[in-house]
Amino acid sequence: MRVIENPKEMQAWAVETKRAGLRLGLVPTMGFLHEGHLSLVRLARERCGAVALSLFVNPTQFGPNEDFSTYPQSIARDLELCRSAGVAAVFLPQAAGMYAPDASVAVVEERLSAGLCGASRPGHFRGVCTVVAKLFNIALPDVAVFGQKDYQQVAVIRRMVRDLNFPVEMVVAPILRDPDGLAMSSRNAYLSADERRMGLGLSQALALAHDAAEAGERDTAAVKGRMRAHLESRGLRVDYVAIVDADTLDPVDALSHGQVALVAAFSGKTRLIDNAAL
Amino acid sequence: MRVIENPKEMQAWAVETKRAGLRLGLVPTMGFLHEGHLSLVRLARERCGAVALSLFVNPTQFGPNEDFSTYPQSIARDLELCRSAGVAAVFLPQAAGMYAPDASVAVVEERLSAGLCGASRPGHFRGVCTVVAKLFNIALPDVAVFGQKDYQQVAVIRRMVRDLNFPVEMVVAPILRDPDGLAMSSRNAYLSADERRMGLGLSQALALAHDAAEAGERDTAAVKGRMRAHLESRGLRVDYVAIVDADTLDPVDALSHGQVALVAAFSGKTRLIDNAAL
Repeated sequence: MRVIENPKEMQAWAVETKRAGLRLGLVPTMGFLHEGHLSLVRLARERCGAVALSLFVNPTQFGPNEDFSTYPQSIARDLELCRSAGVAAVFLPQAAGMYAPDASVAVVEERLSAGLCGASRPGHFRGVCTVVAKLFNIALPDVAVFGQKDYQQVAVIRRMVRDLNFPVEMVVAPILRDPDGLAMSSRNAYLSADERRMGLGLSQALALAHDAAEAGERDTAAVKGRMRAHLESRGLRVDYVAIVDADTLDPVDALSHGQVALVAAFSGKTRLIDNAAL
Repeated sequence: MRVIENPKEMQAWAVETKRAGLRLGLVPTMGFLHEGHLSLVRLARERCGAVALSLFVNPTQFGPNEDFSTYPQSIARDLELCRSAGVAAVFLPQAAGMYAPDASVAVVEERLSAGLCGASRPGHFRGVCTVVAKLFNIALPDVAVFGQKDYQQVAVIRRMVRDLNFPVEMVVAPILRDPDGLAMSSRNAYLSADERRMGLGLSQALALAHDAAEAGERDTAAVKGRMRAHLESRGLRVDYVAIVDADTLDPVDALSHGQVALVAAFSGKTRLIDNAAL
């Protein structure tokens, strides 16, 4: 397994790998890998002759009061997991190698990124789009695999791929959950035992929405009210509760198929997100 | 010579061409080709085994009161010129094939594009960056050739290539001029005989700046004043007169090497631009 820090070297590796006739997959991550990430690697390996994984805690997608400086890291362990998972190359850049001091170009998405996490985290999706565009140009993947847990991120990047004509096939992996239902996330490492128990409220609130839809409930506002009440009853501070069209991410009035419920809530200081198709 | 309308087909052609081991050059144009464009094709052919040229009057880089709807076109003649010049593929998309009705992603450059043409033409460089990013992803060039006449555009695109890590080598071709000194431009077709004579004021103003620098003049404000006076004496309406650092495009106080003089002025209704290194 190659470990490459320099963007130009990574580009050269990608060109060489593709020239050898291999279909190239990329799994972009911020590291502190868990089973969810490894499921993305497996999906990539099913589709590609060589898989690259990027480990980069991207500063530009964090707000000034967010957890950039404390984001969990465990590079040696991550590299070991990548090796075991059959990753061919890990791209492990330094921030200084990714952003020139006078960097002045960004990729912006101005519709799908406006609400939900984009409303709570101004600049987040601008940072995400920009770094993913850079990673696509550096790692030159034929296939890029993202996790469904970041539902809005997937929608925004899919839109970026379409609107900027990136020659990349997007593959989206289902959410992996711990046995108790908590969606896997590197940020779960922040949670105390109590906060973790509280965190189960997110998947439970989504289950409420799912059951309501199955039972023929139509009133979105009523369902969202019950979801919010449940989150609060668990001691979570709600950031948002939303039921949206799966493609446009527009809020919907009446529950039906092709919709997604999304929640974001703080358990202690840790912001958790989760979502489920209805 | 292939003529390709569909972005996916163009991508496939590019992948195939590169797979055959050919270095691929791209010359992005808005068509109505002149000798300046053909000099870009020649530069591309010197460096590449196959050259693609795009013909696309990009709506998103025109302001609401600009000349999008009247921009000169001559597609049959352009294709003939491309054939004679040894172009391997012309990418000739429809606007509807380039921009989805709900397109919501753009590439923005926020420093080099702020002044000069960017100040006079809000949104212009956003449109330019976005379409060039798309063309890079569609035509997948190893080398892209641009004309020095659009000095600020070259600086902005060079910055985009750097900041988004596009795997593209930029090549910049010198300005070609008619025998009387007028910089070649598709927009020269708009000019009446009188307006064309007036238009010579731009290259004359640049010559004034060049001569002043050669003569040891240091006072940028004085030189710009003389340039402006000259443009006005020719009956031109000045948009801007600037002397800037060649890399940062920041205005400079004292004339020295590594600087560029730029002018933009209206001859009748036609906006002309020109520039010269000092």
